[in-house]
Amino acid sequence: MTDTVTLSLAALQRLLEEILLRHGCSADVAACIAHNYAIAEQDGAKSHGVFRLPAIVSTLKSGWLDGKAVPSVDDVSPGLVRVDARNGFTQPALAAGRALLLEKAKTCGIAAIAIRNSHHFGALWPDVEPFARDGLIALSVVNSMATVVPHGGTKPVYGTNPIAFATPREADDPLVFDQASSALANGDVQIAAREGHALPAGAGLDRYGNPTTDPQAVLDGGALLPFGGHKGSSIALMVEILCAGLTGGQFSFEVDWSEHEGALTPKTGQTIIVLDPERGASAPFRSRVEQLLTKLRAAGQERLPGDRRYANRRRAQLNGISLTRDEHEMLLAL
Amino acid sequence: MTDTVTLSLAALQRLLEEILLRHGCSADVAACIAHNYAIAEQDGAKSHGVFRLPAIVSTLKSGWLDGKAVPSVDDVSPGLVRVDARNGFTQPALAAGRALLLEKAKTCGIAAIAIRNSHHFGALWPDVEPFARDGLIALSVVNSMATVVPHGGTKPVYGTNPIAFATPREADDPLVFDQASSALANGDVQIAAREGHALPAGAGLDRYGNPTTDPQAVLDGGALLPFGGHKGSSIALMVEILCAGLTGGQFSFEVDWSEHEGALTPKTGQTIIVLDPERGASAPFRSRVEQLLTKLRAAGQERLPGDRRYANRRRAQLNGISLTRDEHEMLLAL
Repeated sequence: MTDTVTLSLAALQRLLEEILLRHGCSADVAACIAHNYAIAEQDGAKSHGVFRLPAIVSTLKSGWLDGKAVPSVDDVSPGLVRVDARNGFTQPALAAGRALLLEKAKTCGIAAIAIRNSHHFGALWPDVEPFARDGLIALSVVNSMATVVPHGGTKPVYGTNPIAFATPREADDPLVFDQASSALANGDVQIAAREGHALPAGAGLDRYGNPTTDPQAVLDGGALLPFGGHKGSSIALMVEILCAGLTGGQFSFEVDWSEHEGALTPKTGQTIIVLDPERGASAPFRSRVEQLLTKLRAAGQERLPGDRRYANRRRAQLNGISLTRDEHEMLLAL
Repeated sequence: MTDTVTLSLAALQRLLEEILLRHGCSADVAACIAHNYAIAEQDGAKSHGVFRLPAIVSTLKSGWLDGKAVPSVDDVSPGLVRVDARNGFTQPALAAGRALLLEKAKTCGIAAIAIRNSHHFGALWPDVEPFARDGLIALSVVNSMATVVPHGGTKPVYGTNPIAFATPREADDPLVFDQASSALANGDVQIAAREGHALPAGAGLDRYGNPTTDPQAVLDGGALLPFGGHKGSSIALMVEILCAGLTGGQFSFEVDWSEHEGALTPKTGQTIIVLDPERGASAPFRSRVEQLLTKLRAAGQERLPGDRRYANRRRAQLNGISLTRDEHEMLLAL
């Protein structure tokens, strides 16, 4: 195909890194963030891949986000790490606290990291999958900016507030899921608007609070709805409490970038809880997870969470990562 | 009204305690379980109140559940308590490990209790609300018996797998939610069958795997569906892994009471994670939670999770707990 450009993961990462360096990121931050978006693209998450770069550049230019921020890590108790991202991206803040978190999890059996003043604008699974590769169960939540109307309400309060969960398996890649607490993720709405697709029913409201399937109506002052009615809404509520209340970060509804034209990333918080599943269990954990997954397949669930992502990853590792020519030129222009 | 009998919480608890003692529970277990079902009835959770007593008695008679079990508590690491319920109810196992869990949470900032070989047959919020009254955030999950079909599958694998979450507030009762990962709880289906109500669409399948709104068709070899499609299904999966994989307990699909006629309680596991929200936070946690809840009300969400439960509780504290005459006679007959 002549309309695509194929890059290796390393090449895509270098290209993203150059863009981030050019727009005021430190070397450490650029490497960390370039890796994050390159693996999202590799794994087929188009809504969380290179598609996000123009918004990141625009945000860096606006002064809303500090691309050179050096996170400060506090060892507050035997099981708890706190990180002040100091108005930088969340991922370098997690990287800064990760070794201490792992040490605590090994010692205590359970530990958590609470990150504040942080901008999370990428996919959430890259934050949890590596913990599962280190033998831990990981549960992460992150809040964003108010785009989701609580069940029974009329105005947005919650972010899309994803939850990601990862667990080691016996002989395979970790089992990982990553899902918004909203019926759709913001990135999905942006992609639908760009490609002219309608949204599924029950996912969005227009600016007047009426149900709509038009992605542009959602983006133009409209809002998203939680998945699964009041239950998804309660999960979004829990995410806010864990990401802002617990961390000392901002609630989604407090994000105010009005002084920073072009800003598009949420300054909020993130919490990750990790557990050591082998600590004193009376049965080998990994083989027990396999038994459950085998049962799910026998019950007719053909695709487990993450299966498609791993298939995309393997394909990209063999054949490289395909970008459209437009995407590639957009990156080169940045 | 002549068709109701009104009891105080203490009187209802004494009545339930006598029933449990008569059917082979130890004094400790009877007191703990009587309290659990009496407060569920008090809080208006008819599906988790005295309605469950005949099934409990039937299970005790079957020999499937040991009403005299003495839980054994293991202090496995600085942040982790494990409890073997030794085939008894879950609630006394939690009670046995609770002081150690609180001590670990205060020391470490985060801690978890993993309970196995345990029968949880009651409401989940009574397990988490007391932690919030002690100033902690609590998240609990429990699995049950296979009645829920995974998204995309055709046979039940998951239990109704509820999640309960509780957090302290500034000046009010804790904020608590407790929700099944299925579209409906088993108790709701039983109540609907008894009272002849139809189920909402999208909640159940009949024994042939066809969608149904007939509660009896769900109970007669049918199954429930997860809430919110694949996202609710992934949450049910996480609950299985945390309640059985992590604890060393049984998956919902492994519950096999075929040798115990009359058995109706699941022997599985439960995990509770507690966090100390004031540990090193840069803002006072409880007032931050209030700010979020104020915002939710301003956005039009009139009822917060747990509001109805607290209203029922206050009414019962003033006026006593109303049972129908049938319910009261059923209890006296036991």
